[in-house]
Amino acid sequence: MGIVLSFDDKKPAEPDLSALLALTSDDMGRVNELILSKAASHVEMIPEIANHLIASGGKRLRPMLTLASAQMFGYEGGGHVKLATSVEFMHTATLLHDDVVDESDMRRGKKAARMLWGNQASVLVGDFLLGQAFRMMVDVGSLEALRILSDAASIIAEGEVLQLSAAKNMETTEDEYLAVIKAKTAALFSAAAEVGPVISGADRADQAALRSYGINLGLAFQLIDDALDYGGSASALGKNVGDDFREGKITLPVVLSYRRGTAEDRAFWTRCMERGENEDAELQEAIALLRKHNAIEDTVERARHYGAVARDALAPLADNEHKSALLDVISFCIARAY
Amino acid sequence: MGIVLSFDDKKPAEPDLSALLALTSDDMGRVNELILSKAASHVEMIPEIANHLIASGGKRLRPMLTLASAQMFGYEGGGHVKLATSVEFMHTATLLHDDVVDESDMRRGKKAARMLWGNQASVLVGDFLLGQAFRMMVDVGSLEALRILSDAASIIAEGEVLQLSAAKNMETTEDEYLAVIKAKTAALFSAAAEVGPVISGADRADQAALRSYGINLGLAFQLIDDALDYGGSASALGKNVGDDFREGKITLPVVLSYRRGTAEDRAFWTRCMERGENEDAELQEAIALLRKHNAIEDTVERARHYGAVARDALAPLADNEHKSALLDVISFCIARAY
Repeated sequence: MGIVLSFDDKKPAEPDLSALLALTSDDMGRVNELILSKAASHVEMIPEIANHLIASGGKRLRPMLTLASAQMFGYEGGGHVKLATSVEFMHTATLLHDDVVDESDMRRGKKAARMLWGNQASVLVGDFLLGQAFRMMVDVGSLEALRILSDAASIIAEGEVLQLSAAKNMETTEDEYLAVIKAKTAALFSAAAEVGPVISGADRADQAALRSYGINLGLAFQLIDDALDYGGSASALGKNVGDDFREGKITLPVVLSYRRGTAEDRAFWTRCMERGENEDAELQEAIALLRKHNAIEDTVERARHYGAVARDALAPLADNEHKSALLDVISFCIARAY
Repeated sequence: MGIVLSFDDKKPAEPDLSALLALTSDDMGRVNELILSKAASHVEMIPEIANHLIASGGKRLRPMLTLASAQMFGYEGGGHVKLATSVEFMHTATLLHDDVVDESDMRRGKKAARMLWGNQASVLVGDFLLGQAFRMMVDVGSLEALRILSDAASIIAEGEVLQLSAAKNMETTEDEYLAVIKAKTAALFSAAAEVGPVISGADRADQAALRSYGINLGLAFQLIDDALDYGGSASALGKNVGDDFREGKITLPVVLSYRRGTAEDRAFWTRCMERGENEDAELQEAIALLRKHNAIEDTVERARHYGAVARDALAPLADNEHKSALLDVISFCIARAY
């Protein structure tokens, strides 16, 4: 006996971020100007490092969330541009500090800043960007937005420490891993989305909706990223596969495969993750094990769960182009896995 | 284009608790004796009330989890019986206090204790049972088990307060609701399962596995309970449908239906939940709305997600009859919805 599911439920027709990009394009122009001016300093190394990272081309999803979530509730001032810039600076600072902590050589296909300017400069420029982020938030003058973003900053740092203590520990449970990415990734998505309604004077329910959207989108986003690092559910492997593996990062696909594996499988993962045997041959074997245990598909399945929760978080809001653009972000995140 | 899912993935073949019952039957005999002796008091009202509730026939799932999780790691003393009894007393105390807070008239199809002996006695006998629970835990002498169970006691109380502040508020988000049931229900499941490996001297990874199993099982259990209160996904409605509705309890099916609904649907839910219009006619309409928004099915779907996480939590443990019995509990919980 079987039931037929429409394939559309599983794979939406090529969702993209075009609606979000269009809605935030003017404001993102202002964010980019502000990024350049606030990363300026007479200490030359600061703009050099900041621009290296800022120019290296992330999707800028987080500041776009702040802009869209402010526009959505009719915000008319200029504070959302400052908050969006703060959010991007917080994110950039985290990346700089992360690379030092993880001893990463590369970041988005380029040399990590720490390889070019050293660890000390990376740490300090991260601190500088965090400082600038707080100055801009204070400038906006919303105590509630300040509380939300400074809470997020603490939670992110706490998440890093938590990850440090969980790092290289193959016994990490799914719940423990979830707690790490909730802090490290989802907290900033959540704050980025929540400050929009806050500075627009939207009501508590709208604020809670955007907060919930952000946290669940962030979880889905990170889980899909984890799946993509092993090629997602596509059969052909693209480039950039295996970065997490080579860095010994324990992500959900690995947690699931380890837990579901035989004693022999687990010994393999321990060798790779805890003892650093992570050449191409091991990567091939790792991917075979992930496939065997359905670990990538089930990571995507977990992401789909959080995507569904994020979708319901926005459900009560009036239908408009902003809501539709934010829902597209969920579909886009999930669809990346295919 | 469609894909065919085997129906077996969705509906396992009538899973039941028989394996767990068989494994814990002897020890449960001891738990039942201990319950009677520890609920004894020269203050007559105490055993009367305690026995009223204890005899009213819950499944005793929580103490069975403690017993099975201790046996699983080869525990040989008698402490697991005391901890299992403590867990059941904590649960019973919560029910007594809950009924007072919720002003419930009925509990498991019988008159609530507070209707027979009054609110004050219900509160105090709950406190007495909690006190007895702590005495038994101290008796066992494991500081770690004491920490786990006393943490759970605080978290449960905190969850009740959280629920109080969320009660009758239709704007409750799914995340907020999840936080409530994580504290109110899942924390005790988690503690019940975690103390087994603790008193058996199992290692940290086994302890984390059982904790994670418990919390996710607890979430799945409560979500299925919520779905069942509206008839589950069965088309025929059984008895006892609508208790939550009549008490104005906002559970996930209602949260989803409210959030997904039209302005008119939302006005309906607000009338029912916040203003107490909850006769049979409204219940019929409520169920129609839940169906229209797929809210019951999606609540079961969310439960299935937590069930999958609980399953992976146990995955690394050696296969044996205890593990198999604990996995059956997950399937049993989910299957109740059909």
